[in-house]
Amino acid sequence: MSDLPIAAVDRLIRKAGAERVSEEAASELSQILSDVAIDISKQAIELARHAKRKTVTGEDIKLATKTMQ
Amino acid sequence: MSDLPIAAVDRLIRKAGAERVSEEAASELSQILSDVAIDISKQAIELARHAKRKTVTGEDIKLATKTMQ
Repeated sequence: MSDLPIAAVDRLIRKAGAERVSEEAASELSQILSDVAIDISKQAIELARHAKRKTVTGEDIKLATKTMQ
Repeated sequence: MSDLPIAAVDRLIRKAGAERVSEEAASELSQILSDVAIDISKQAIELARHAKRKTVTGEDIKLATKTMQ
């Protein structure tokens, strides 16, 4: 099951310039984005722990994304 | 403005194991995921055009993601 709303993802694909979008396309991208979100979040959680915090912050997310590229 | 619901992104960060999540963290990740979605979608649209289709399919999304890694 995907955790990001298919309709919102469909809108993003159209925003990128798509004329038509299959349901599978939106569903597939939703799943990929969820996987990316989990990967970034796990890294961000580790960074928060490293800084002795229990709250994951925007800075943790930013740094996690940077270190994963 | 972010195009993916903050609440859904917050749930993903918690699913990854976070105890507490700041509002900025969910907002930041939502923006990052939107950017990733647009990048993948643009590549997928190019692949669909290359195959002389107007509809972006799940296979376009899969191949776009693969070629971008």
